[in-house]
Amino acid sequence: MRIAFFGDVVGKAGRTVLADELAGLRKRLSLDFVIVNAENAAGGFGITAKTAEELFDAGADVLTLGNHSFDQSEALGLVERDSRILRPCNYPEGTAPGRGSGLYDLPDGRRVLVMNVLLRLFMESLDDPFRRVSEELDSAPLGAVADAIVVDAHGEATSEKSALGVYCDGRASLVVGTHTHIPTADARILPGGTGYQTDAGMCGDYDSVIGMDKEEPVSRFVTHMRSSRFSAASGPATACGTFLETDDSTGLARRIEPIRIGGVLAGHEPSVS
Amino acid sequence: MRIAFFGDVVGKAGRTVLADELAGLRKRLSLDFVIVNAENAAGGFGITAKTAEELFDAGADVLTLGNHSFDQSEALGLVERDSRILRPCNYPEGTAPGRGSGLYDLPDGRRVLVMNVLLRLFMESLDDPFRRVSEELDSAPLGAVADAIVVDAHGEATSEKSALGVYCDGRASLVVGTHTHIPTADARILPGGTGYQTDAGMCGDYDSVIGMDKEEPVSRFVTHMRSSRFSAASGPATACGTFLETDDSTGLARRIEPIRIGGVLAGHEPSVS
Amino acid sequence: MRIAFFGDVVGKAGRTVLADELAGLRKRLSLDFVIVNAENAAGGFGITAKTAEELFDAGADVLTLGNHSFDQSEALGLVERDSRILRPCNYPEGTAPGRGSGLYDLPDGRRVLVMNVLLRLFMESLDDPFRRVSEELDSAPLGAVADAIVVDAHGEATSEKSALGVYCDGRASLVVGTHTHIPTADARILPGGTGYQTDAGMCGDYDSVIGMDKEEPVSRFVTHMRSSRFSAASGPATACGTFLETDDSTGLARRIEPIRIGGVLAGHEPSVS
Amino acid sequence: MRIAFFGDVVGKAGRTVLADELAGLRKRLSLDFVIVNAENAAGGFGITAKTAEELFDAGADVLTLGNHSFDQSEALGLVERDSRILRPCNYPEGTAPGRGSGLYDLPDGRRVLVMNVLLRLFMESLDDPFRRVSEELDSAPLGAVADAIVVDAHGEATSEKSALGVYCDGRASLVVGTHTHIPTADARILPGGTGYQTDAGMCGDYDSVIGMDKEEPVSRFVTHMRSSRFSAASGPATACGTFLETDDSTGLARRIEPIRIGGVLAGHEPSVS
Ligand SMILES: [Fe+2]
Ligand SMILES: [Fe+2]
Ligand SMILES: [Fe+2]
Ligand SMILES: [Fe+2]
Ligand SMILES: [Fe+2]
Ligand SMILES: [Fe+2]
Ligand SMILES: [Fe+2]
Ligand SMILES: [Fe+2]
Repeated sequence: MRIAFFGDVVGKAGRTVLADELAGLRKRLSLDFVIVNAENAAGGFGITAKTAEELFDAGADVLTLGNHSFDQSEALGLVERDSRILRPCNYPEGTAPGRGSGLYDLPDGRRVLVMNVLLRLFMESLDDPFRRVSEELDSAPLGAVADAIVVDAHGEATSEKSALGVYCDGRASLVVGTHTHIPTADARILPGGTGYQTDAGMCGDYDSVIGMDKEEPVSRFVTHMRSSRFSAASGPATACGTFLETDDSTGLARRIEPIRIGGVLAGHEPSVS
Repeated sequence: MRIAFFGDVVGKAGRTVLADELAGLRKRLSLDFVIVNAENAAGGFGITAKTAEELFDAGADVLTLGNHSFDQSEALGLVERDSRILRPCNYPEGTAPGRGSGLYDLPDGRRVLVMNVLLRLFMESLDDPFRRVSEELDSAPLGAVADAIVVDAHGEATSEKSALGVYCDGRASLVVGTHTHIPTADARILPGGTGYQTDAGMCGDYDSVIGMDKEEPVSRFVTHMRSSRFSAASGPATACGTFLETDDSTGLARRIEPIRIGGVLAGHEPSVS
Repeated sequence: MRIAFFGDVVGKAGRTVLADELAGLRKRLSLDFVIVNAENAAGGFGITAKTAEELFDAGADVLTLGNHSFDQSEALGLVERDSRILRPCNYPEGTAPGRGSGLYDLPDGRRVLVMNVLLRLFMESLDDPFRRVSEELDSAPLGAVADAIVVDAHGEATSEKSALGVYCDGRASLVVGTHTHIPTADARILPGGTGYQTDAGMCGDYDSVIGMDKEEPVSRFVTHMRSSRFSAASGPATACGTFLETDDSTGLARRIEPIRIGGVLAGHEPSVS
Repeated sequence: MRIAFFGDVVGKAGRTVLADELAGLRKRLSLDFVIVNAENAAGGFGITAKTAEELFDAGADVLTLGNHSFDQSEALGLVERDSRILRPCNYPEGTAPGRGSGLYDLPDGRRVLVMNVLLRLFMESLDDPFRRVSEELDSAPLGAVADAIVVDAHGEATSEKSALGVYCDGRASLVVGTHTHIPTADARILPGGTGYQTDAGMCGDYDSVIGMDKEEPVSRFVTHMRSSRFSAASGPATACGTFLETDDSTGLARRIEPIRIGGVLAGHEPSVS
């Protein structure tokens, strides 16, 4: 199976690069399934029905979220109604609306389990991400129930993301980080067969401070005062993500490569024959 | 000028990959100057006279440190004696021994200003890194006093590193992050001419949790109990860093590319004619 | 000199208890000077011209602030115009409007130096609070220039507040903490003669979660979701603070006692003959 | 029932004040049950068999711990063997040795449920403290199974402790905080009948920085360098705690008062007829 995962879409610039590029990519990479982290899709803060629709129209099959899941109040209803949008799976039971994971059917009958999890180092503490992910992995074992499993590890610290990758090694097809908005150059297959990349990077304008217009963030670091609101940078965006090819007999990773298309970053597109 | 910067050397594996590869790289890339972050050189924690010597022997011109600078008590004397070893420049005046920056002469008379700075988000708070770096940049203006300026931004948060890059844009040759131990794929030249990469990545064994044997870190995340000490992973290491070519007339960046050699990461070596 | 310091005034309940009680207290305790931390005076978030006026009318001589100083945008002008309102003194130079300290004249000619400082553990990092406070103390030495010196240490961690008290011992009349909204029972005179209390407590309704209506804070801890905004609790408030009597020949503390008047906490009023 | 709870015992000074005072207090206050937080009993760091024995000999019925539970490796066996020593109840199931709660029989047949819980704000994240405490409270309902219930809320932030108090109101006899080492002056009975005090304070020498010799902590805040190890302050200690009298028909609080005996703090002993 061929899967692409794209990191945090930031504002209109991020949505636009996917609208422009995703259809072509789906063809060129023969993608079976596309997952997009959309926690910053709406002007940099959360998701709305309209921005979700844009991303589905662009070619996303499933959207994941993170610590900004509910920045926009309409997301509360959205995640209830649309089972293709996932908020972190480790909210305490009975609290957040919506779902933290989903098992999705491909047209050909193969099934992909996707989950979104919020890590805890330097972040708000939801339930134990390691245990919750383990329970989710057990609910649809790779190669038995799920043909592929993708874990979106939304977190700050490289140590925690890396440990989660190791912890899931052999039980998931892909553990990929989000939240830092900067792609890492460590995509690889772990010894047990799980594809891993510490952060997918954002889909957004990198001529910015992690997707936001540069002036205000720099000013806040220097002065510790607010001058204005943060606004999503609007220059040409880079679509950053991860390409994964799994072995359909096991669900494990056969190949992993970063994707970087457009904008100011050095581009990279896997070449698929 | 051609400069290579290598991220946090972790233990013997990290020292070994530089001992094996750096001499060849210096030649192939016609490097004028090599900087290595060595805060984890001694078994993963700090630096000793012996490990520093190994890195100088391998071909480093200057070593930088970080939050682990003084994990080994012999580092207190080492940074006093050896002006090629830099601890963060934003310790309060009159506290830490040693230096936070240095202006180094190349054999041909060109001069490189190097500084190490500890950022503050999710870290211990030293003095304002933005102001301190600004003062250092003013002390040896790029293109006037210094032919090249390299800022090692040792920090956790991508936002703060990114903001520091923007803040220094046009006044430094290179702002490169360290500390997360994972290389980022965002090396680029900022609009004002400063080369930037959010994190250089570590020189260490990536079949690990950020350079440490996998078992104990995973166990601590899962159980919140200590089973044993952390020990540096000892498999084949990847030397991760950044290659920078500056324009000698301005000191600004002309070209920036990541370096990844050896170990389990996908390799990348700039091709220089 | 007899001084009273009151901790974080939270909303209307906090302003009301001071309006009701402060005039009487000034008389009963023969107070020469009254300082009130007002960072939450306006509905729990920041300060406005109107709420500042209420507190001055109630009998405050000087108002201090904290991490909520500029929650209300009109505070930006207010601290510029009114030298009796102090924001933290350790904003980087040239950033925040207003002042971080002031030397105030009593009608009888005695002078009181007051400063507000933001600590750093678990908080946003302004400049080094220890060094800044030391510089302020040097600017108007106790017993020489200032007849009394009060340091409002706005911070989260008891270790940092306690260390600042020790650090200032002998050079200030009073180091008193604010920010946690809970009064501590450790008022005492340190060996060098400085009065110290880790936190003055708030002036607010304690039948609450640190001054806010109980329901929403509890709900957020339990669900990690927002149901509504925080609103300041409106029941009868306790005025919490510290009473200090100094020796006019040295400026050091001769007597320190907590003040707790009104509301649901066990009351305490120093008895002064 | 009459219960006394004492906060974090710090080193020999803390153990000594309890050895000297607890027997007398048990008599004067007609105490039925005494709980002591002992996470810093062994030289400031953790607990050993010997220091536990000293505290039991002094008159403690149950010892609680906190984030320092396992600083001393012998604590691993100790909490397994001795059911009177409780570590936080919100370690993930199957990880830490020992117990997080216990139901203890008084000689007269009444039973006391005691639990220790680690909060999460600014601390390492164990499992959800609110849910775990709720489960514990349900396991031995107050007034039905347990004649009294005491919750030791080991945490940093006043907001989280206060919210836990509100959350348990009516279901526990006492929610009392530990960890900050500074007693709060907010002991009161919440509207639902639960006794509450944000922090019991430490049993230790207050002429210190939260129980440690002053010099090193201050030096670290000022210089960000280590000069020596932390060592527990050895001057006369204050035994800080909370006195609670419950209504045996409901298990709810009838009276709550702070206890402060010895050392440099202003003393307070409830007067019981
Ligand atoms: Fe994001
Ligand atoms: Fe995020
Ligand atoms: Fe490092
Ligand atoms: Fe580091
Ligand atoms: Fe406050
Ligand atoms: Fe505050
Ligand atoms: Fe403690
Ligand atoms: Fe503790």
